Amino acid sequence: MKNKAITSRDVDFAQWYTDVVRIARLAAYSNVKGCIIMEPNGYAIWEEVQNKLGGMLKATGHQNVAFPLLIPENLLNKEKELVKGFAPEVAWVTVGGQNELKEKLCIRPTSETLFSDYFSQVVKTHKDLPLKYNQWCSVMRWEKETRPFLRSREFFWQEGHTVHATAAEAEKETYDILDIYKAFFEDVLAIPVILGRKTESEKFAGADYTLTIEALMYNGVSLQSATSHYFGQRFSEAYNIRFLNINHEMEYAYQTSWGMSNRIIGAIIMVHGDDNGLILPPHIAPTKAVIVGIGEDEAVAKAAEEIEALLKAAGITCYVDRTEKSAGYKFAQSEVNGIPIRIEIGNRDLNANKITVARRDTREKIAVDRNIDLPAYLTDLLGDIHKNLYERARERMRRLTFAARNKAEAEAIMAKQAGFVKGDWCGKRECEEEMKTIGGLKSRCILEGVAPETGKCVACGEEARHAVVWGIQY
Amino acid sequence: MKNKAITSRDVDFAQWYTDVVRIARLAAYSNVKGCIIMEPNGYAIWEEVQNKLGGMLKATGHQNVAFPLLIPENLLNKEKELVKGFAPEVAWVTVGGQNELKEKLCIRPTSETLFSDYFSQVVKTHKDLPLKYNQWCSVMRWEKETRPFLRSREFFWQEGHTVHATAAEAEKETYDILDIYKAFFEDVLAIPVILGRKTESEKFAGADYTLTIEALMYNGVSLQSATSHYFGQRFSEAYNIRFLNINHEMEYAYQTSWGMSNRIIGAIIMVHGDDNGLILPPHIAPTKAVIVGIGEDEAVAKAAEEIEALLKAAGITCYVDRTEKSAGYKFAQSEVNGIPIRIEIGNRDLNANKITVARRDTREKIAVDRNIDLPAYLTDLLGDIHKNLYERARERMRRLTFAARNKAEAEAIMAKQAGFVKGDWCGKRECEEEMKTIGGLKSRCILEGVAPETGKCVACGEEARHAVVWGIQY
Repeated sequence: MKNKAITSRDVDFAQWYTDVVRIARLAAYSNVKGCIIMEPNGYAIWEEVQNKLGGMLKATGHQNVAFPLLIPENLLNKEKELVKGFAPEVAWVTVGGQNELKEKLCIRPTSETLFSDYFSQVVKTHKDLPLKYNQWCSVMRWEKETRPFLRSREFFWQEGHTVHATAAEAEKETYDILDIYKAFFEDVLAIPVILGRKTESEKFAGADYTLTIEALMYNGVSLQSATSHYFGQRFSEAYNIRFLNINHEMEYAYQTSWGMSNRIIGAIIMVHGDDNGLILPPHIAPTKAVIVGIGEDEAVAKAAEEIEALLKAAGITCYVDRTEKSAGYKFAQSEVNGIPIRIEIGNRDLNANKITVARRDTREKIAVDRNIDLPAYLTDLLGDIHKNLYERARERMRRLTFAARNKAEAEAIMAKQAGFVKGDWCGKRECEEEMKTIGGLKSRCILEGVAPETGKCVACGEEARHAVVWGIQY
Repeated sequence: MKNKAITSRDVDFAQWYTDVVRIARLAAYSNVKGCIIMEPNGYAIWEEVQNKLGGMLKATGHQNVAFPLLIPENLLNKEKELVKGFAPEVAWVTVGGQNELKEKLCIRPTSETLFSDYFSQVVKTHKDLPLKYNQWCSVMRWEKETRPFLRSREFFWQEGHTVHATAAEAEKETYDILDIYKAFFEDVLAIPVILGRKTESEKFAGADYTLTIEALMYNGVSLQSATSHYFGQRFSEAYNIRFLNINHEMEYAYQTSWGMSNRIIGAIIMVHGDDNGLILPPHIAPTKAVIVGIGEDEAVAKAAEEIEALLKAAGITCYVDRTEKSAGYKFAQSEVNGIPIRIEIGNRDLNANKITVARRDTREKIAVDRNIDLPAYLTDLLGDIHKNLYERARERMRRLTFAARNKAEAEAIMAKQAGFVKGDWCGKRECEEEMKTIGGLKSRCILEGVAPETGKCVACGEEARHAVVWGIQY
C-alpha cells in the first residue's frame, strides 16, 4: 500500500521530493525568498549530523569556534580569486542603527577572509601551528533558483579552516578531511560516494585544488556532497599570515578549508526515501523506534510503556505514539517520517506473548517473542537496516554508473538514464564545455590514481590525461 | 602568588575582565566593529551551555528549529511596539546579488515576527497546540558601545517561542521557563539569582509582561541574565494566529518568548573569577581536570597517562598538558583557564605513592594516596567545588544586598558600594527616572509575592505598591 499524499518518485521525482519534505515536516517555506525554515523533524537530523560529524572532527583535533556573521568589504576584497567568485552573490548590509555605513558589510558567503585575518594576528611561530578550527553556522549566497535543502540563499553548514607550517601537512589535512567525510557518508548516512579532485573550472575560488565527494541520487542525478580545499599560500600571502619556521626564517603559512552543508538532508531523502516517505539511516535517525499500540486496551498501553522504558534504558531513542489517531494512521506517519523501526503492539499478539517489529527499509513485519532480549535484537536490526540501505544504494550506483568512450556513447547513455558517466578527458576547458551540451553533463571529479581507460578524450578524441566521472548535478 | 599578566580585580575591575577574556583566550576582537570571535576556550563553554540548558529544554518538551536570518521590513512592522523597540537598532540588507532589493531585509534582532508568521500558517485547531520551539542562533543589534560577551552587535543566544490554546497555559510556560533558567544558573553555573517581573519601562517591547533573573557580579553590578516574556494575544492579533478552540470558536492564540545569551559567559567570569584568571564552575567546565607532570621523567609521564586513561574511562574530561613549558607555567595556565582541578605528578610524590590534587576555587593542594578510587574522589571534589563556588557567590550577594527606605539611604549605600538595593516603589515612571540619578540605579525587578517593606516609595515617599530591587547594570 502506498501513501496517497505522496507523488510516486517514478512519476515525478521533483514533486515526490517536495511532497516528502512537506509531509515529513522537515522544512517549510518562509516569507523570506530563498530561505527555508528547518522544522523540528528536519532540524533534529541536522543536530545528529552535528553530533556525529562533529564528534569525528573533535576526535581528530579540530576545535569549534564562532566567527562574525559580517565581513567588511575591504577584507573580502583582499584575495582576488575569492572576491571574483563570491562578490556577485553576496548580500550587503549598508545601513546599521539608522545610519548609512561608511563601509558596507556582506553577510558571509564563506569565512576564509575572517579566519585568515584572525590567523594573521595570532600565528607567530611554528609552535603556534597547526590551528585546526571549525564552525557550525549559516552562510548566505544570493541564489536565483532555490529548493529546500538542495539550494537556498541561507544554508547551514560546517566550515573548517586550518593553518599549517608545511605544505605537506596542509595537503595531508585536505585529504584526511575527505576521508572523514567519506566515512561519515558511508558509515553514518549509509550513502556510498565517489571521491576525487575537481577540475580547474569547478574548483573553489582561490583554492590550489579542491577535493570532493559526490553521491548519486535515486534518479541518477549527482550531488556534490562535501568539499575540501588546499590553498597553499594564496590566502596567507593575501592576508599576511607569516610565522617563524624551524629554520628561524619568516614563512607564509599553508592553509585548507572544507565544508559540508545541510543539503545532505536532501541527499538522505533522495538516496534512501521511497513512495511512502522518508527512510532515515539508523545512525542518523533522531528516533530509532516508534511504538504503536493497536486499539484502546489497558494491557496494550502498559506493554507499550514497558517497552519504551526498556529501550530508553538501553539508549535506544524511541517514543510511544500517543496521538488520538488510528493505528493505521500512526503506521503511515511513522513511515512518512522515516523512523527505522516500528513496534506494533496488539491484544492478539500480546496474548500469544508476541509483538510485531516492522522495519522501514523493507517494510517487512516480524513477529517477535516478548521474552527475547529486545534491545539487543533491535540494535542488531538497526545494524542490518544500515547495511541494507547502504547495499541498496551501492547497487543502484553501480547500476547507474556507465562508461562512455566518445560523445555518441555519452549521448546514448543520457538519452536513456542519468547517472555517473565515466569518460577520459584531455584536460582542455573546451571539452568540459562541450560535454555540457549532452544533457548538462558536468565533470564531477577527476579520479585520482586511476589511469585513463581508453586513452582518448571522450569529447575530442585526443590524448586523455585524466579518468573523469561526469554527471548532471543538483 | 598572583598572575602578573592579570590586573587585580580590586584595582581595576574593567581591566581585570578584559585581561581574563584575553589571557584565557575566550574571545578575540574581530575586524568587524562590535563583533567578537569566540575562540575555542570560549566556544567550548557555549557548547556546554547548549548541551546542559538545551537538555533541560528538550526534557520539558521543547523542540529545536532554525528560522531564517533575515526579516522583510513589512513583517517587522506588523507589531507596532516591537518595531518601535527594535527598528532603531537593526542592520539592513539593501543589496543582494548586485541588485538593489525592492524590500529591504533586516538581520534578525529577535525572531518573534518570523515565528509568528509561521505559526499563523500552521496553527489551525487546539489540537495543533501547544507548539514549543527553540532555536540556538546569533542575532544582531547595532549597539554603540560593546564589550566582549556583555554587549556586542552580534551575539549568540537561544530564543524560545511558544503558542498555546489558553492564557493560563501560556502564563504557566512563562513562569516554568524562569524556573528552568534559575535551576540552570544555580545548579549548573553555581550563580545565585534573584527573580521577578520587569517594570513597564523595562519590559520587552510588545510583551504583556517580562520576567527576569538577575545576577550580581563581584563588583556589585547586576547583570540581567535571562528573560521570559508573556505576550497574551498581542502577536497573534498582529500576525493573525487563530485556531478553532474546544468550543468550536475561532480564537487568537497565546504566546510566549524567552531567551538567554552568551553574555552569561561574562557572568561566569565576573561572579567566579579571581586575580589568577577564570574559575569555571565544574558542571559547565568543558575540561574537569588537567594533569601536569613535573620534570622529564618516564615514571611521571607513564603515571600521567595512566591517570588520564582512568579518568576518561570514568567520563571525567581531562588531558595531560604536554606542551614544552615548565611545570610552573602549566600550573599558572591551568588557573588562567579556570580548570576546576589540577593533578600534579612529581617523582618525589610518586615514590611515596602519592599525587597532588589542586582545586582551582580555593587553590588548596591536597596530597592524595595513589591507591584510592580517584574518579570517585574527583567526582566528589567537583561537587564540593560547585557547592563552594555557589556558597561564595551567595554570601557575596547577601553582603551586597542593601535596603533603602528613601533616596538619602540609597545615596549613602551607592556612595560606598554598588549592589542590589531593595526599596519600595509607588509604581510611577517618574520615580524610576528619579532613582537613575543615584549613580544610575535602575529597577532590576519587582519581587512577586513580596509585600512592600516600608509601605513608602523610596523615591517620592508616597504609598508603595511594589517591593523592588534596584541596581546598576551591565
